[in-house]
Amino acid sequence: MQRLTSLSLLVALTLASVAHADEGMWTTFNFPKAAVKQKYGVDIDDAWLKKAQRATTRHESGCTGSFISGDGLVMTNHHCVVECLAELSTPQSDLIGEGFHARQRSAERKCPTEILSVLIDTENVTAKVTAATTGLADSKANEVRKQTLSKLEAECTAASKKNRTTGPLECESVSLYQGGEYHLYKYKRYDDVRMVFAPHDSIAAFGGDPDNFNFPRWCLDFSLLRVYENDKPARTPEHLTWRTEGPSAGEPVFVIGHPGNTNRLYTVSQLKFQRDTSVPSYIIRNTEYRGRVTQWAKSGAEPARISQDPLMHVQNSLKVYRGFQEALLDDALFDAKNQQEQQLKSQAGAAFASAWTDIDKAQTRYREIYTRYLYLEGGAGFNSKLFSYARQLVRGAAERSKANELRLREYAASNLPKVAASLLAATPVHADFEQVTLSFSLDKLRENLGPDDPVVRQLLSSESPDSLAEKLITQTKLSDPAVRKALWDGGIAAVNASTDPMIVLARDIDPGARALRKIYEDEVQAPVASGQERIAKARFAALGTNIYPDANFTLRVSYGAVQGWKELGEDVAPFSTLARLYERTTGKAPFSLPQVWLDARSKLDPNTPFDYVTTNDIVGGNSGSPVVDAKGRVVGLAFDGNIHSIAGTYWYDERDNRAVAVHPRIIITALRDVYDAGAIVDEILRTK
Amino acid sequence: MQRLTSLSLLVALTLASVAHADEGMWTTFNFPKAAVKQKYGVDIDDAWLKKAQRATTRHESGCTGSFISGDGLVMTNHHCVVECLAELSTPQSDLIGEGFHARQRSAERKCPTEILSVLIDTENVTAKVTAATTGLADSKANEVRKQTLSKLEAECTAASKKNRTTGPLECESVSLYQGGEYHLYKYKRYDDVRMVFAPHDSIAAFGGDPDNFNFPRWCLDFSLLRVYENDKPARTPEHLTWRTEGPSAGEPVFVIGHPGNTNRLYTVSQLKFQRDTSVPSYIIRNTEYRGRVTQWAKSGAEPARISQDPLMHVQNSLKVYRGFQEALLDDALFDAKNQQEQQLKSQAGAAFASAWTDIDKAQTRYREIYTRYLYLEGGAGFNSKLFSYARQLVRGAAERSKANELRLREYAASNLPKVAASLLAATPVHADFEQVTLSFSLDKLRENLGPDDPVVRQLLSSESPDSLAEKLITQTKLSDPAVRKALWDGGIAAVNASTDPMIVLARDIDPGARALRKIYEDEVQAPVASGQERIAKARFAALGTNIYPDANFTLRVSYGAVQGWKELGEDVAPFSTLARLYERTTGKAPFSLPQVWLDARSKLDPNTPFDYVTTNDIVGGNSGSPVVDAKGRVVGLAFDGNIHSIAGTYWYDERDNRAVAVHPRIIITALRDVYDAGAIVDEILRTK
Repeated sequence: MQRLTSLSLLVALTLASVAHADEGMWTTFNFPKAAVKQKYGVDIDDAWLKKAQRATTRHESGCTGSFISGDGLVMTNHHCVVECLAELSTPQSDLIGEGFHARQRSAERKCPTEILSVLIDTENVTAKVTAATTGLADSKANEVRKQTLSKLEAECTAASKKNRTTGPLECESVSLYQGGEYHLYKYKRYDDVRMVFAPHDSIAAFGGDPDNFNFPRWCLDFSLLRVYENDKPARTPEHLTWRTEGPSAGEPVFVIGHPGNTNRLYTVSQLKFQRDTSVPSYIIRNTEYRGRVTQWAKSGAEPARISQDPLMHVQNSLKVYRGFQEALLDDALFDAKNQQEQQLKSQAGAAFASAWTDIDKAQTRYREIYTRYLYLEGGAGFNSKLFSYARQLVRGAAERSKANELRLREYAASNLPKVAASLLAATPVHADFEQVTLSFSLDKLRENLGPDDPVVRQLLSSESPDSLAEKLITQTKLSDPAVRKALWDGGIAAVNASTDPMIVLARDIDPGARALRKIYEDEVQAPVASGQERIAKARFAALGTNIYPDANFTLRVSYGAVQGWKELGEDVAPFSTLARLYERTTGKAPFSLPQVWLDARSKLDPNTPFDYVTTNDIVGGNSGSPVVDAKGRVVGLAFDGNIHSIAGTYWYDERDNRAVAVHPRIIITALRDVYDAGAIVDEILRTK
Repeated sequence: MQRLTSLSLLVALTLASVAHADEGMWTTFNFPKAAVKQKYGVDIDDAWLKKAQRATTRHESGCTGSFISGDGLVMTNHHCVVECLAELSTPQSDLIGEGFHARQRSAERKCPTEILSVLIDTENVTAKVTAATTGLADSKANEVRKQTLSKLEAECTAASKKNRTTGPLECESVSLYQGGEYHLYKYKRYDDVRMVFAPHDSIAAFGGDPDNFNFPRWCLDFSLLRVYENDKPARTPEHLTWRTEGPSAGEPVFVIGHPGNTNRLYTVSQLKFQRDTSVPSYIIRNTEYRGRVTQWAKSGAEPARISQDPLMHVQNSLKVYRGFQEALLDDALFDAKNQQEQQLKSQAGAAFASAWTDIDKAQTRYREIYTRYLYLEGGAGFNSKLFSYARQLVRGAAERSKANELRLREYAASNLPKVAASLLAATPVHADFEQVTLSFSLDKLRENLGPDDPVVRQLLSSESPDSLAEKLITQTKLSDPAVRKALWDGGIAAVNASTDPMIVLARDIDPGARALRKIYEDEVQAPVASGQERIAKARFAALGTNIYPDANFTLRVSYGAVQGWKELGEDVAPFSTLARLYERTTGKAPFSLPQVWLDARSKLDPNTPFDYVTTNDIVGGNSGSPVVDAKGRVVGLAFDGNIHSIAGTYWYDERDNRAVAVHPRIIITALRDVYDAGAIVDEILRTK
């Protein structure tokens, strides 16, 4: 399932279409209760929605989870904790391969960089934002809008500190409906998140990349975390209860979570930009990266271990992007989008025509700068954790010296804690792997910008990508958290005085990279934002407000039912069962099973339901979402979509778009009968 | 520059459009003499064309060359002899990296698998082929057409053995104008081809992949071979003379050679098949392959040496396919093609309408079978030289037991010598590299066919791609030429009795692969061939015969002039000079220079012209083509096109499509002043 990546956040959002069928990723404050009642005969009321909201966690690494006990126990996917497992692993202890099981709370281990958020409240601030930008030219409006949002966030966060009911919250501004509305989302943050349980990777991701996005499926893509406050398990009275028998076929179910990104109402020119430019570029770059890392992983046990998480990530993303490509090459999509666009244009009238042409022109401009922007500002030329540290240190120093609302948005006060947490965490840096990825990206930098580009000449006039990567990685001291902390605390003076080669590199390329960012913001982002705001108005006028906004990693609820689909004329049944798992094992990764699973075979019921599919409209970021029934009880754990769901970024097709979930019975079975985790089962089930 | 690959031959050919500007890859028997006279004021007569034909060599590995002395000396590109250099190299002697220079003829070394052909004569057999297929259903006609062509080839070859003027020739049937015409092309074959001179790879391919398809350029992509007969240099009285000063800007020049493949008059549905299916599939597969091999090459000196040739090949192909993708994503192309198609359809009338719909339906069918066809029959699932041997042995045994005209075309009598030469040659097999590529392709086989595909289950039910590749490569004995010879000579009985695991694999998958081939031939190839023949008739009727056929690796002449172009509004000058080569060197591959070139710097004239561009319409397969002036004298050596030339597969745009050639002055300078190869210079220049 797609996890959010920073790249996917580069693309601007659009307003989503009117819902029909089981379509839609709805906000809790605009949930289509009547439609659900009409189609499924169940009542979803505000109390239900409020509870769902408070029991759901947003994982800043790009996933969703849910509280399933009053002691802060969080259920999410295994693939959402792989990064934490990797950070906690050592050459002697491979927590991805071997799993993790804290038999006492004292054995629960803190994830170095994980932060969880719970949405406590929201506030509509559209009027304030609109008032601040009215009458300004696009690029000025774009700037002022960001400043206004940073200011509103800071004020909101400060105010929360005096609020005795909620306690301190972090406020984030959110644009919904393509700039049609602006809200402040107020989150309670948990930054002490500990690992409780993770099964072996080979059962969590059984079938690996070949099975990913396919169904039937046999993945126990499940794990448990726990949030702590003041070194004690947090009290989480608003948590979900459990229904081990799971849902029946046809039963209505709901997925609560944080879908990351959809582009359902991109204009035709934005879709063409994706089809012709950004998607092919992504596929080509990352397919070669995959090849390099795959081959490097074969060079030894340590490389194999270190590569697990990055490989899983890139394989997943590539499947998604290949799905995008296939969807975008569908001429029917473009015909339909064209028709919708023409219709809305004619309904909107001549006064709105420039909204589309401004966006079209911005796409043309984006195409011109895209490659240099991607490689120099987007970081594609410097694929290295150590370089990311260097850039954060260089930029962070410069930005923190400015007033909050004048900073680059990612260094605004509301984001700084996340930046600092990830920058200063003592996570392992694998120098050999860094050399592989940095050499690769420098090679692509040269390939894509050309050997005579000024930046390429500056970096590679007497070096090859290999030799430069080796120098940088072996000579930088940034793998030491203390060195990073000294530079972070030392601010501009420390950064400017540094002779660390990675800092020097980040410093040297920064002016050029910032210049590209400025062009992007003024000549691409600004006219797109302005055009989209206008289109949003036209769409509200034409279609009313009974519509859902495009996904943007904020809380949504989708509704649907447990249901298979027809693949090439054949029925795909909605449930898989345990028996076939054993038939499909080959003894070799990714189709091998852990010994405990082989040993347990005889005592397990072969008819135990394993995974299942539903019509819910979800997307990457929903990973780890609870699937709940009409009574709000957990009946599953979403972890993937079928292959057709990938096109869900552009449209929802109820005929074949399916969400894939882990069944609660296999979770309980695994915990109790395979992993001897009775205490955990008791904690989950006792909460009824 | 694109070299022909077997994959590029999978795609059927179409008839090319009416020429304008410097467009066209013309047959010698339909050369537009009047148009050339009118545009450039020069007379190209039949004697000129005949001489050009006889002095030009076709390299069966996918290139062109030319005789430049009376003693069988052949000039071609360095990148056309890399495979031979690799085959002659050892861990102790890297002829790609270090170059090769035979200071006496006795030191010239035979290329193990190279075969050169010279076109002696052609014969139009359209009437015979048409008579044989008239009135038959498409799939039957397709079969009978192939049988007829095999029969005509065999008769022609047999007849030549009695011809005292020409001596024995190999006759190959050729379809021109999309089946509008059929010809027999009669070739004199040279199978004793020896390496005479090759510069260091680092100067031949200076700038490597980053510079490939770019200009200005500094590549000495030049090498010399010699053909032998009866162990003596062949007498080649019809050879080209030399003009060291080269052409002036604006001067008309001609490129003679064997352009491999163009698709200029594909139907819209065929272009969409490429855009949506075959081109993305190629890019994704080979980009990952490139990544794997690149990373493996870094694992040691031997891997680096072994990977040179395959990496060069795949990088080149990827640039080509990425250029295809960019061209195919140009909506203007599709609009223009659509208009042309509509216009021709309406001129042709209702009687011809089914020609297009038949091709459209065939594309739909092709899409359905493409992935399995590509992986099982096309060999994408078994990327291994040893597997190719096994398949040739298994298939060759079966096919040779049939009457000539009933065989698969690649085992027809006219092709058998090439098959046997390549199969039985004592070329090195690198087991480690074989494991890398076979494991990769088995992995992609599983990824693309799915883990539950019957063939995948058969191969990988208890193996991983890595473990299976390792078993196959370490256990097969096919790397021994004697083992291959015994199986080849032993025919069906020997192949059936073999327990060699690679033979067993090739045998096991053969029925399924052949079944896919049959579907492809009957349901894709046959209706396409029939439809194309009908479209060809419609086009002849509408446009007359003053048109050129699509390229298909047969002899063509293109005309043009030495001329730069405008890139983003800036003039690109037509010539590069030596001075800038030294400025661009970084000391690291692929921008490093051999020591002899660094040493020679002070004695070389920095203004020596190096490479240059012309408007000639050429494509992969033209690599190594002589560029000649109006008097037929060598004024250059074609080796590449600029980046815009890649779109030449689909159309020719005189504004920016440019061929790139090595200048004769840098060739003479290099031989005389850098490589101390005065004897070779004397042989070349004495021939005036």
